Amino acid sequence: MPTGVRIDATPEQLDAIRYDLDGLVTAIAQDVHTKDVLMLAWMNAESLRMTFAEGRMVYWSRSRQELWRKGDTSGDRQFVREAYYDCDADALLFLIEQEGAGACHTGERSCFHNRFGS
Amino acid sequence: MPTGVRIDATPEQLDAIRYDLDGLVTAIAQDVHTKDVLMLAWMNAESLRMTFAEGRMVYWSRSRQELWRKGDTSGDRQFVREAYYDCDADALLFLIEQEGAGACHTGERSCFHNRFGS
Repeated sequence: MPTGVRIDATPEQLDAIRYDLDGLVTAIAQDVHTKDVLMLAWMNAESLRMTFAEGRMVYWSRSRQELWRKGDTSGDRQFVREAYYDCDADALLFLIEQEGAGACHTGERSCFHNRFGS
Repeated sequence: MPTGVRIDATPEQLDAIRYDLDGLVTAIAQDVHTKDVLMLAWMNAESLRMTFAEGRMVYWSRSRQELWRKGDTSGDRQFVREAYYDCDADALLFLIEQEGAGACHTGERSCFHNRFGS
């Protein structure tokens, strides 16, 4: 059974993150094995703290306006392996172990399964 | 010299994209060769249209409030290979050929070069 890695972010790193006016920052989840981008969602400071503490991806659901512990309902949890922030400190990137069928509620492994083009 | 692929998005695909209240959508640029995530930025409808027409990544700069034809200043252009949108149609993913030193203005190849942890 997969488990996540707890991340000991430093206070300086946590302070560096620039949340938007809604207190949110974008978070990309990338498969640590295939390097496929699985999904993009949002985190607030509390969900980021929980993600680091639990080693599991916890988002902020903008549609439901609540913490979203990914996989609590679907069973398809995401276990953290590595975490990065970008040069502007307003976007996060997580390398994760995807449990179950995939990241997408449609049953697809990646949410980015719609390809542009005719 | 690398060139981009023009994407013939269908009207249905273009209509599906859900822009936020500022008329923007997140766009992830992923290296088509290494599959590293290079950057996350934003597009409006015009920059997306230009990206598809030119086969080059064109973003909307939120800080400068203007179209940002990536690489026009730095020389580090990004050439489009494949383009996807996610299940909510509010995030875009581009597989790109990165020209020059990298995507980041710091000189790093990826903007996500800051790793959380002590």
